[in-house]
Amino acid sequence: MTQSQTSLSQAELENQLKAIVGEDKVRTDADSLETFGKDWTKIYPPNPSAIVFPKTTEQVQAIVKFANEHQVALVPSGGRTGLSAGAVAANGEVVVSFDYMNNISGFNDMDKTVRCGAGVITEQLQNYAEEQGLFYPVDFASAGSSQIGGNIGTNAGGIKVIRYGMTRDWVAGLTVVTGKGDILELNKDLVKNNTGYDMRQLFIGGEGTLGFVTEATMRLTRPAKNLTVLVLGVPEFEAIMSVLNTFQTNIDLTAFEFFSDKAMRKVVARGDVPAPFETEAEYYALLEFEAETEGHIDQAMELFEKCMEEGWVLDGVMSQSETQAQNLWRLREDISETIAEWTPYKNDISVVVSKVPPFLREIEEIVTREYPDFEIIWFGHIGDGNLHLNILKPDDLAKEIFFEQCAKVSTWVFEIVEKYQGSVSAEHGVGMTKKAYLKYTRSEAEIDYMRAVKAVFDPNNIMNPGKLIDMK
Amino acid sequence: MTQSQTSLSQAELENQLKAIVGEDKVRTDADSLETFGKDWTKIYPPNPSAIVFPKTTEQVQAIVKFANEHQVALVPSGGRTGLSAGAVAANGEVVVSFDYMNNISGFNDMDKTVRCGAGVITEQLQNYAEEQGLFYPVDFASAGSSQIGGNIGTNAGGIKVIRYGMTRDWVAGLTVVTGKGDILELNKDLVKNNTGYDMRQLFIGGEGTLGFVTEATMRLTRPAKNLTVLVLGVPEFEAIMSVLNTFQTNIDLTAFEFFSDKAMRKVVARGDVPAPFETEAEYYALLEFEAETEGHIDQAMELFEKCMEEGWVLDGVMSQSETQAQNLWRLREDISETIAEWTPYKNDISVVVSKVPPFLREIEEIVTREYPDFEIIWFGHIGDGNLHLNILKPDDLAKEIFFEQCAKVSTWVFEIVEKYQGSVSAEHGVGMTKKAYLKYTRSEAEIDYMRAVKAVFDPNNIMNPGKLIDMK
Repeated sequence: MTQSQTSLSQAELENQLKAIVGEDKVRTDADSLETFGKDWTKIYPPNPSAIVFPKTTEQVQAIVKFANEHQVALVPSGGRTGLSAGAVAANGEVVVSFDYMNNISGFNDMDKTVRCGAGVITEQLQNYAEEQGLFYPVDFASAGSSQIGGNIGTNAGGIKVIRYGMTRDWVAGLTVVTGKGDILELNKDLVKNNTGYDMRQLFIGGEGTLGFVTEATMRLTRPAKNLTVLVLGVPEFEAIMSVLNTFQTNIDLTAFEFFSDKAMRKVVARGDVPAPFETEAEYYALLEFEAETEGHIDQAMELFEKCMEEGWVLDGVMSQSETQAQNLWRLREDISETIAEWTPYKNDISVVVSKVPPFLREIEEIVTREYPDFEIIWFGHIGDGNLHLNILKPDDLAKEIFFEQCAKVSTWVFEIVEKYQGSVSAEHGVGMTKKAYLKYTRSEAEIDYMRAVKAVFDPNNIMNPGKLIDMK
Repeated sequence: MTQSQTSLSQAELENQLKAIVGEDKVRTDADSLETFGKDWTKIYPPNPSAIVFPKTTEQVQAIVKFANEHQVALVPSGGRTGLSAGAVAANGEVVVSFDYMNNISGFNDMDKTVRCGAGVITEQLQNYAEEQGLFYPVDFASAGSSQIGGNIGTNAGGIKVIRYGMTRDWVAGLTVVTGKGDILELNKDLVKNNTGYDMRQLFIGGEGTLGFVTEATMRLTRPAKNLTVLVLGVPEFEAIMSVLNTFQTNIDLTAFEFFSDKAMRKVVARGDVPAPFETEAEYYALLEFEAETEGHIDQAMELFEKCMEEGWVLDGVMSQSETQAQNLWRLREDISETIAEWTPYKNDISVVVSKVPPFLREIEEIVTREYPDFEIIWFGHIGDGNLHLNILKPDDLAKEIFFEQCAKVSTWVFEIVEKYQGSVSAEHGVGMTKKAYLKYTRSEAEIDYMRAVKAVFDPNNIMNPGKLIDMK
């Protein structure tokens, strides 16, 4: 079963759900079905049976038990900012929204941990941490809407992974309801706990297919001090790698991003932020580090000069204030929004860092050869080997033809991913959009083990069925 | 089945193993059976059928396939430094030693990763990293003998966890042979790879019960700069926590250890290292940090003075050289060896950091009340909430009676662990010695899921059977 196969009537379904969560916490109006039935992907038309809003872990458990009894498929719904259709209900599923489980509690200054309902918004946690004089470092463009439960389900990454890791690294403990309807308290927030299989790790990045995360204890850390940004213009892609290695061996970078001149020009053309300097360069690297002392600034300047001498860097600028740092960040962060008007074909892929240059070149070559009119925009978290490939639709090409041609591009890209032993989804997860391509990163044997693991936690395949893997 | 149930004769067994690995890579002499049949625990008499020394992942696969065919139980064997009898072969198992899979290869400076056979010794990797100008930061007392495969199987921790995490955090990719005999390449060394269940995490800390790790790609990092050690005398246990919080909010500590005055006196009495200062204190905290610049030293001094003013610290000393730093470390690191002559009862337990003071007090109270003659020695990685409880045998008490009484202590300790939602094994794993106590940290439901997960990877229960969990 990959879709809802319940034999319940719509009225029975609604009544039983209302009996669990209360009259006002089940919605079936057209607006709600449309809104809560989809994420940021726009490929699959939303078609849920109902939206249910539990307020407690026990209510989630009751929903799951009910769903097992009546073969009702459930889809978890957080901030619905996903980019792989992992939270889309296209097949009559019941959507379980965590919007009402958005409580932050139990902050402990000594442990530097805080308890979050699955529905806590990322930014809400970031702000809460700041109020305690601390820092939640996982950050990305959708932080204003994405929810902690969704972040955990997709192991969200973002722009500070090089220093702070992924969401996985900040989950001290999890409360989950498995597909069998058991409540598990995983890891109990311990730092050290070597008592067998760390099943918490399966639910992180599990996309809700094993069970739903209802609460999590998240770690916080000390705030970063005097974050300073360097933007460097480099003459060729390989030079970015030399710059990365030079800095990383000496400084704990908090970010290392790159973008192409093409991307930068489009952002600057909007008139909101100036170009970093006049010298032209084909690529740019954006580095961020904590300038705790003058000594750190001096060291960064020395490394910068070394890179200039080696010919790896043509020009550069270092932020002198927080505002300047923010403006330099905008050169990178505004790219997505800026290129949106060209209806870009997007892909989120990764390889090990050292393989990035030939990997990128090979993709560029095949796309340029087959579709010389396509404009390719690269940017990404290169310190993690994570590239965001964007192909802009030529103005005179019809959308349908463009998407058709991009489907071919996908296959080439994923074949190259496979050749370089990379990932078809670096940080966006698999959901429905990447499911057919999973085999380029995971072997058939691995996928079979994944199916068997799912069957352990969700034997009736009611938890987000049809996402990530299809059951045989 | 928890023991080997093969119907093969000993001669058939040996011949078939020799056919896989070669004549000289199967040993059945008494010395080898004794040596390779046990780890550092001395509770279960070793009784393996044979020791086999594969040289490749493919040979391990052939051994596992053979074992499945003939119901031969296999026990993985690394440096045999385990403290939970996770690598003991007491029931006629075949021991698979990784001693001949000790090759380090494929170093990549850009990725800062290196490929290790499961039999690479921890210190060998540490030295290799140093030769490349890099650092492998997971470190503990048995680093000179323990092997990477064993470290991964037990998710080894040690003295730098507060900064660098456990072994889990340094495994970029794993080659494993599952109990079904499949070779899986898990995670392909990627930093970012959100393509479903991260099964690598199950094998880390899985104690060889799902399959055997045969090779691993390990991450390295930049060397620590000018490591500086502070030893502070504190008047009462709670003060250690205030000191920890004060420093941790301002400085990235690389270690935060504690030990009691009783422990320190015994180390100093051996005459190898002097007391840190004359002032008497009930407990000591040992802090380590990178003093990259003078500014860092000044900041540490300021925090030290603040702690003095608050009355949390009675006296302190800061290392001025590497030798001094090493001598201060010996106050902590020599404790285990020093107290060995008292045949100590040991336990390795953890709670969240904030609960350490009442947790420790409660254990002390019950032991002191019931056994007033027992001397308790505490030390541990308090920055991670990890305490090593040591009870010394009174000179006039017979060993047997002492161990009998300690069994009672164990039950009290684990009941208190459960009350504080702690871990019955912070870093030593479960193996055989903690198996009966697993329920104090893991719920029955969790343990059932663990059994089901094991059955997915090892349906015939031939991989280290009887360790960690018993199959129903």
